[in-house]
Amino acid sequence: MIAVDWGTSSLRCYRLDEHGAIVDSRTSNEGILNVAPGKFPDVLQKQIHGWDDAPIVMSGMVGSRQGWVEAPYVPCPAGLDGLSKNLKKVTWGKRTGLIVPVVSGRESVPDVMRGEEVQALGAEVDGLICLPGTHSKWVEVKNGRIERFSTHMTGEVYALLKQHSILGRMMQEGAPDHDAFSDGVRRSGEEGGLLHHLFGVRTRGLLDDLKSAASASYLSGILVGHELRSRAIAELRLIGEPELVALYARAAGILGIASMSLDPTTGVRALFKLGQALA
Amino acid sequence: MIAVDWGTSSLRCYRLDEHGAIVDSRTSNEGILNVAPGKFPDVLQKQIHGWDDAPIVMSGMVGSRQGWVEAPYVPCPAGLDGLSKNLKKVTWGKRTGLIVPVVSGRESVPDVMRGEEVQALGAEVDGLICLPGTHSKWVEVKNGRIERFSTHMTGEVYALLKQHSILGRMMQEGAPDHDAFSDGVRRSGEEGGLLHHLFGVRTRGLLDDLKSAASASYLSGILVGHELRSRAIAELRLIGEPELVALYARAAGILGIASMSLDPTTGVRALFKLGQALA
Repeated sequence: MIAVDWGTSSLRCYRLDEHGAIVDSRTSNEGILNVAPGKFPDVLQKQIHGWDDAPIVMSGMVGSRQGWVEAPYVPCPAGLDGLSKNLKKVTWGKRTGLIVPVVSGRESVPDVMRGEEVQALGAEVDGLICLPGTHSKWVEVKNGRIERFSTHMTGEVYALLKQHSILGRMMQEGAPDHDAFSDGVRRSGEEGGLLHHLFGVRTRGLLDDLKSAASASYLSGILVGHELRSRAIAELRLIGEPELVALYARAAGILGIASMSLDPTTGVRALFKLGQALA
Repeated sequence: MIAVDWGTSSLRCYRLDEHGAIVDSRTSNEGILNVAPGKFPDVLQKQIHGWDDAPIVMSGMVGSRQGWVEAPYVPCPAGLDGLSKNLKKVTWGKRTGLIVPVVSGRESVPDVMRGEEVQALGAEVDGLICLPGTHSKWVEVKNGRIERFSTHMTGEVYALLKQHSILGRMMQEGAPDHDAFSDGVRRSGEEGGLLHHLFGVRTRGLLDDLKSAASASYLSGILVGHELRSRAIAELRLIGEPELVALYARAAGILGIASMSLDPTTGVRALFKLGQALA
């Protein structure tokens, strides 16, 4: 079968054998934001050229309003069985693709997840999992079902402040500065709240208290610190890009929280199971 | 004398009589971001054409690195006497202007203020004053001196999220929606923290729980709510633009905090006093 992780900024295709092992993989930057409307079949077909396997199971933003087609919503608690029953079929030429539904939750306001549900369920562990990113997800899994989850805009707010705010004007590119990042994590626990702590990125720079090459790391520490402090946790289980996982683990360490990294290819495992369930 | 409030986006000039009463005023959009380097004397001279009064006392971002000249820093506790001794002189033709220094504070990180210090001191009341804006200031005044203060990036973060984030994509222009604003203020007290609450602007919209014309007001309520909740206050005294003051008063009301609005022209009064001290 073919497993496809199609997100906002990248397209990752995996060819799997009958045991679910990855025998080939191809990655491109044709995330959904780089695909013209109506061109999703062409882009995918080109990417999986020469792979004639079936089924093709896809997860991620490809199932959003800005993607190939909007997938149905499956409310929490949601397990692989519920996802399997609500796959959205797309066809092109003689081929068929199946898009994993969106998981929706509702505490006091609704929340949605596209792509992280297969990573969290594929990990096959119970408990709370953090998937850091543009929109970080905190997912609670129990008996193979997603009980509840919440989203934090940490990555997007970081990028916005760096690119468009007055904080970004004084920043210079530089290698990640671990000390400045740690300072930011500690700062996030002081009085005044996030909106106040952010302004310190500027004022510390103005008063020569922070080098301009270190201020992006300090900002990152403030934001990740606020995200972690908003959850009362004793242990942090992480799935994600290695650099980001290392950053969150560092922040957790400063807060006295033990952390561990789970295999980031768990999503492919869950897509394989969804494919098997179809057979 | 002439009092000048020269900020980022506007230039306000006031001609005062010998009692400090405003006898004439002129406002333009020639804030410091709209003035080419070296053109500050020309812009001011044109704006006060026909007013031959002296002294000319100026406050605001005109005294920043991006302004006419960077004014000296006066640390807290700072009163009018300390400001008066550190006025920065600028000259052009046969005229002289005096720029009010920057007030700096340092709790665990430094903070700075340009322009709000004359408004807070001009109010001539002791206690905590909130000056909402792009960078909201919370100023503690005691015996006519600024004891300490802090800055919150509330207004800038609101504008950034509206213009550049995924939240802004679903927003439609509309009249301010008081109910949505109030919902946002209430939401700001729930678990999960600001970075989580922000994402609800998107998900409530996605799931038809929030109209796109109301989502900017909901976002505003979340941010102002977080700002107010970060301070433990029984009463809120506000100085600022009437619309913004009304918004903060509404949020305070939801949190059970009494609020009152102070005269927003207090800054001119303080500039008059600084001018008198020179005589």
